[in-house]
Amino acid sequence: MDYDDIVGLFDNMPDPDRESIARTREREAELVKPEGALGRLETLAEWCAAWQARHPPRLDDVRILVFAGNHGVAARGVSAYPPEVTGQMLHCLSTGGAAINQMAGVHSAGVEVVELLGGLPTADFSAAPAMDESACASCFGTGFDAVPGNADMLVVGEMGIGNTTAAAALACALFGGAAADWTGPGTGLDPVGVAAKTRVVAAAADLHGSEIGHPVEALRRVGGHEIAALAGAVLGARHRRVPVILDGFVATAAAAVLEKCRSGALDHCVAGHVSAEPGHRLLLRALGKEPILDLGMRLGEGTGAAAALGVVRVAVAAHRGMATFAEAGVSRGPEGFEDAG
Amino acid sequence: MDYDDIVGLFDNMPDPDRESIARTREREAELVKPEGALGRLETLAEWCAAWQARHPPRLDDVRILVFAGNHGVAARGVSAYPPEVTGQMLHCLSTGGAAINQMAGVHSAGVEVVELLGGLPTADFSAAPAMDESACASCFGTGFDAVPGNADMLVVGEMGIGNTTAAAALACALFGGAAADWTGPGTGLDPVGVAAKTRVVAAAADLHGSEIGHPVEALRRVGGHEIAALAGAVLGARHRRVPVILDGFVATAAAAVLEKCRSGALDHCVAGHVSAEPGHRLLLRALGKEPILDLGMRLGEGTGAAAALGVVRVAVAAHRGMATFAEAGVSRGPEGFEDAG
Repeated sequence: MDYDDIVGLFDNMPDPDRESIARTREREAELVKPEGALGRLETLAEWCAAWQARHPPRLDDVRILVFAGNHGVAARGVSAYPPEVTGQMLHCLSTGGAAINQMAGVHSAGVEVVELLGGLPTADFSAAPAMDESACASCFGTGFDAVPGNADMLVVGEMGIGNTTAAAALACALFGGAAADWTGPGTGLDPVGVAAKTRVVAAAADLHGSEIGHPVEALRRVGGHEIAALAGAVLGARHRRVPVILDGFVATAAAAVLEKCRSGALDHCVAGHVSAEPGHRLLLRALGKEPILDLGMRLGEGTGAAAALGVVRVAVAAHRGMATFAEAGVSRGPEGFEDAG
Repeated sequence: MDYDDIVGLFDNMPDPDRESIARTREREAELVKPEGALGRLETLAEWCAAWQARHPPRLDDVRILVFAGNHGVAARGVSAYPPEVTGQMLHCLSTGGAAINQMAGVHSAGVEVVELLGGLPTADFSAAPAMDESACASCFGTGFDAVPGNADMLVVGEMGIGNTTAAAALACALFGGAAADWTGPGTGLDPVGVAAKTRVVAAAADLHGSEIGHPVEALRRVGGHEIAALAGAVLGARHRRVPVILDGFVATAAAAVLEKCRSGALDHCVAGHVSAEPGHRLLLRALGKEPILDLGMRLGEGTGAAAALGVVRVAVAAHRGMATFAEAGVSRGPEGFEDAG
């Protein structure tokens, strides 16, 4: 994939499937419960059906993609952890020892770990663009191609020491505001560390600000390899009709590039959770996404989205398997009250 | 069980197990993630271990108990559904067609439906005490005895047309405030219906208010058969070291009786969700319980708690199965930063 090809991927994006939505609503209205009594579970079932273009929706094949990348900006001391942890955690993820592996096991979801460009770090984006056009396009394409067309649901996660700094710089480039609005403790910086990280994000905004025209150019200049891959995967999922559960700040910042390219580009995505990283709440608000969970998590790897998977699964199971009023022989109300007497 | 025996059940309640807590914290600190990065999932894993008195905690055997009862107050038109729906839904629950059956299936949890006193309705509590002492004690005892000692987790749910009216009257008796504060649409009343329901709750407060000394007396006068059973089950779980996920307004109001009897009596319980019924949010605040989910659900049956079960399961799975820093060969930060270089 060439860099200039990325913009073309926003053409001919599938819309939600009207027939599947209509069939979901028709069945939902017959299920043996008061109208709307399952709250957001009902809208989640409809969302699955709409984007899978299938009624009833199903969740037999849930895929978790974890993209890993190294960040030149990590050398600026923006993380509580040393840069080599990215590679070490990649090994841990591949051998089943990470949190996401355990959570995936609960939901019988497959985890695939994708290391971008052999672990090569980006440039320090506070001094130069993070990537050249070729690297950005390559990573975006890797993500785009990594989504299996037969998956029922995609969870996207990431691993990369320094990547909340990149997410902050990217959110700042896409949505404006002060660097301090988007910058937080990440894996565990103290206030002095957060202040230093904020200066790095501000320096990046000063350096690249006037050069950023297109949102993909923001991705290239202040993103990262795994962030480009995340954006590619979310767009790839749209084209293959795979609904997506977004994870935390980094995954959401990557996805936000798409929404800035084309309004509605994230309609096939729900926010699995809002993390403890303060910029994530701001970003979700900017995107109009209401998170399923709000549990103070801040690990990445896709763990917040995987925690939300149980909610989506019960939503789909209830829609698929509940009896109708007629099947159960249960009287309806309120409009059916008279008939039931 | 005699009515006067209930108060004795608050003696010798088990405390959280200190050794299991210590072992949970020790392991948690070694798991390959920044400290606290799994947020509430970490406290949920510790809570399971503390009340199971076992490390690591486990969730192999999750039981869902759904108590069903009929309410004399339903004849006052306080529900959008006719009273016979309780019995019809009982059949639906027993044959696997209800929402809770489908959700239980996702999590391989067992559902047991318990009909109290053969479906006999309580008296209309806006005119007389809902139960005599014998019925109240019998239902409480049925709930208490229904909790299997070998269960790893208990979810309590209910079914009973008219029971959000009873829950409102009970919350009002236990915590004071105006009837309108605790009364909501339940299964789907319109504003005129809610106003009428509020008058029924207010009438009950006027009738019983000065007669209610002990919280168990509130349960007897304005509760219901399934509500007494719910309270008994939550207390039975405490004695058998089975942690509990509370469901919605009705289950929480039942449990609140215990907390009013003895402060700390609900320490083995978490709130699975906050429902759309406005009184539930107030009640959780009064009990100091932060709900895991807030998804606008209002079905009962245990469905809100069952939706939260996925979160508790990933919490326990992560704690049990993740590698430690040493096992994974991952450098620690921030204090380990120097050692890692």
